[in-house]
Amino acid sequence: MRSEFLEELILILGHPNVLVDDDDKAPYLNDWRKRYSGKALAITLPKTVQEIAQIVQLCAKNQIAIVPQGGHTGFCGGATPDNTGAQIILNLKRMNAIREIDKANQTITLEAGCILQAVQDKAADQDFLFPLSLGAEGSCMIGGNLATNAGGTNVLRYGNTRDLCLGLEVVTAKGEIWNGLKGLRKDNTGYDLRDLFIGSEGTLGIITAAVMKLYPLPISQWTTLVAIDSIESTIALLNLFQKRATSLLTGFEMMTQESLTLNEKHFPHMANPLQGNPPYTILIELSDHESEEHVRQLLETVLEEAFEAGLISDAVIANNLSQANSFWHMREHITLAQAEEGANLKHDITIPLSSLDNFIKETDAQMRSQYPGVRIINFGHLGDGNLHYNIAPPLGVDPKAFNLIHEKPIHELIYAQVERCHGSISAEHGVGQLKLEDLRAHKGEVAHELMKTLKRALDPQNILNPHKVVSI
Amino acid sequence: MRSEFLEELILILGHPNVLVDDDDKAPYLNDWRKRYSGKALAITLPKTVQEIAQIVQLCAKNQIAIVPQGGHTGFCGGATPDNTGAQIILNLKRMNAIREIDKANQTITLEAGCILQAVQDKAADQDFLFPLSLGAEGSCMIGGNLATNAGGTNVLRYGNTRDLCLGLEVVTAKGEIWNGLKGLRKDNTGYDLRDLFIGSEGTLGIITAAVMKLYPLPISQWTTLVAIDSIESTIALLNLFQKRATSLLTGFEMMTQESLTLNEKHFPHMANPLQGNPPYTILIELSDHESEEHVRQLLETVLEEAFEAGLISDAVIANNLSQANSFWHMREHITLAQAEEGANLKHDITIPLSSLDNFIKETDAQMRSQYPGVRIINFGHLGDGNLHYNIAPPLGVDPKAFNLIHEKPIHELIYAQVERCHGSISAEHGVGQLKLEDLRAHKGEVAHELMKTLKRALDPQNILNPHKVVSI
Repeated sequence: MRSEFLEELILILGHPNVLVDDDDKAPYLNDWRKRYSGKALAITLPKTVQEIAQIVQLCAKNQIAIVPQGGHTGFCGGATPDNTGAQIILNLKRMNAIREIDKANQTITLEAGCILQAVQDKAADQDFLFPLSLGAEGSCMIGGNLATNAGGTNVLRYGNTRDLCLGLEVVTAKGEIWNGLKGLRKDNTGYDLRDLFIGSEGTLGIITAAVMKLYPLPISQWTTLVAIDSIESTIALLNLFQKRATSLLTGFEMMTQESLTLNEKHFPHMANPLQGNPPYTILIELSDHESEEHVRQLLETVLEEAFEAGLISDAVIANNLSQANSFWHMREHITLAQAEEGANLKHDITIPLSSLDNFIKETDAQMRSQYPGVRIINFGHLGDGNLHYNIAPPLGVDPKAFNLIHEKPIHELIYAQVERCHGSISAEHGVGQLKLEDLRAHKGEVAHELMKTLKRALDPQNILNPHKVVSI
Repeated sequence: MRSEFLEELILILGHPNVLVDDDDKAPYLNDWRKRYSGKALAITLPKTVQEIAQIVQLCAKNQIAIVPQGGHTGFCGGATPDNTGAQIILNLKRMNAIREIDKANQTITLEAGCILQAVQDKAADQDFLFPLSLGAEGSCMIGGNLATNAGGTNVLRYGNTRDLCLGLEVVTAKGEIWNGLKGLRKDNTGYDLRDLFIGSEGTLGIITAAVMKLYPLPISQWTTLVAIDSIESTIALLNLFQKRATSLLTGFEMMTQESLTLNEKHFPHMANPLQGNPPYTILIELSDHESEEHVRQLLETVLEEAFEAGLISDAVIANNLSQANSFWHMREHITLAQAEEGANLKHDITIPLSSLDNFIKETDAQMRSQYPGVRIINFGHLGDGNLHYNIAPPLGVDPKAFNLIHEKPIHELIYAQVERCHGSISAEHGVGQLKLEDLRAHKGEVAHELMKTLKRALDPQNILNPHKVVSI
């Protein structure tokens, strides 16, 4: 039966697009962090939505599970198959056409396999901004961004991937094609199918194409680093910028002293230009469509007000694009510095801004008292309430040994604090395999049952990325 | 059994909150346009989410259908019961507490029965803008706004009701309470339950409370009317404002010559201040957080550019708030002028901006050739691609007689054009009873089947607002 199934796959896709040899399959079987690996009956490389519909129909008939995959840059193992070798991978990289750019409507229609950076570039060619931007943009694909509702650095102004999407094309668990590729800002024709598929990580349907919003390109951006003593002042500073600069505010990133100390250890050329490595370093970016003078003046006015109110103690404004980039690189290199330092425990969480100060004080205190010497590498998109609250072992302690003993209780301590503060245990990285159990424990019984009901209704055979996000 | 059921209802809510006398029930049984009326076993007036959960449990046990109701200002009969007298109405007006305003987080947590204008006022008291704004705001309720994903005049800048909502509290068809009241900008913990309930018009669950976004109050607004010759130039003007003024652009409304002629007939004091009643009159509003001078200068610069590019032939900038209000009143009175004129055929549609010119030319031509003398009262939120493309009979023809014969074929003609242009037959008013059949005909088979699957899964007994939006 297995060989018959593979023959039928080859009939649909042609020989070169069904990989069955171990060497050919290998690059598709591990996740980016090398935390998860699996086996697969075959890797399939479809080019059209019709081929995908046929594959799903064939899998439904044979009860074979499908793991959809984009650039497989995810953090949570959502695109890695299990170890049975009975699942197939459906990688969408060949489905990478930009179908249309509609300038008057300010939309782009593209296929799931488009690489994010290529989409940004294509939009910029036409004088538009495609605002989604994140570390993996050179290799992640728009299908994966939609499947995980990816966040990134522009969420503060432009929202998550969900907010950028107007319409979808999806292959259902029956192998039917839903063409919902409409570029409309208002459409109340019934239930919101689009948002149900977005963020479902391929467990309810396979996203094959989308209509996304475009925005006018800003003509000037100014970036600054400010030194600040407390989270309380940081929130006041954010609120000040929200009030004065409103939608010109496109970045508000926080880095703790400990994060930047680690950064400097591994990347000495990325030292903090602010004197004395302050408790919190905030990166602020304003983007403007009027003039360089307008935005620069606004930035200076608000910073002055912040100085006078005693919110900040120091500030450095980037003099040119290259300095602005170096500020952003400093922020982005924290993740790499952590990787250099060794394995660490990641927490991608959101806390309401009003509870952030309390969350950090309380969680830091508990961590330091229960795990003396532990390093709290806390940084993130503070403007969205999104922290990457990561834990590295005390200096000199072997990370693997430390994690083996402490991973679970540390996750539990932090997630309990998140729950107390009405936050989220999964902000922008998704659930996948990594947080399947955490989600079950923290989602709440009613919501978790609703999720299972939806999964059973839309994928009754459980063939779409089973045991990711929710198990039925 | 019926009297036993009523007794149990009274046990839950107390006597005064279960209306069974015809006189008491009457105000709840008709819709605002007097297009739909129904009967009800009882009107229930709960005060808490626990009471609502108990009512739903009781109804589930007795298989009695529930029609949730807010300010019942809807256009589509979504909150009106059927004629069997076997359904109960669950009116949420007593559940009208504002539970919390979180200033640092810029959110408001409120109950479904809050009147929209009261929410706007409460936000303004705290120096915040709650941007949702629509004609019925003096009596519509936030629960109904969420249930229908209401639009209005601020969508261009702030999005639909869906985009303003961060979290929900919902009573499910089983009578369970889902507490999803989180005020987070990023939360990827599983499927997007929130957006599934928003816009489902009470057919999948009953929305009882929500966390909504607040924004800083603008400090200056400038409103202008411009005269324009074609839709093509109108779109170019919109794109120009989007590029130069970006998020300062908060209103872009279109009124045709024919709409304003009708307006002036019934409200002579609302004559168009632009000379000669041009083919298209566009109302443009900019809102700024910097200064009056800044926004006024920006508006003048962009208008100058538009003159030079030959896009507009005349412009009047409001000199003061009262004149700005009179411009908006002119726009808002078109609906009232239509009501004065007699029954008319309404179409609340969206068209991609790039197809709008073609849609209007083609549809106008077909209407005028097939129905000579017909008046096309076309106006709306053009910035969102949202037209209220309404049809009045030729002068002197009785509207009721005209509609009796032509209603169905006119709807079909217009919806066929909408479909050809990849538009939506329901932009911001919802589906309810009015568009149930149209939706079935125009949604597409796969999407409509998905909707039925969701309805069956989440409300298997079909007790939540049955035969609204979708029939199973």
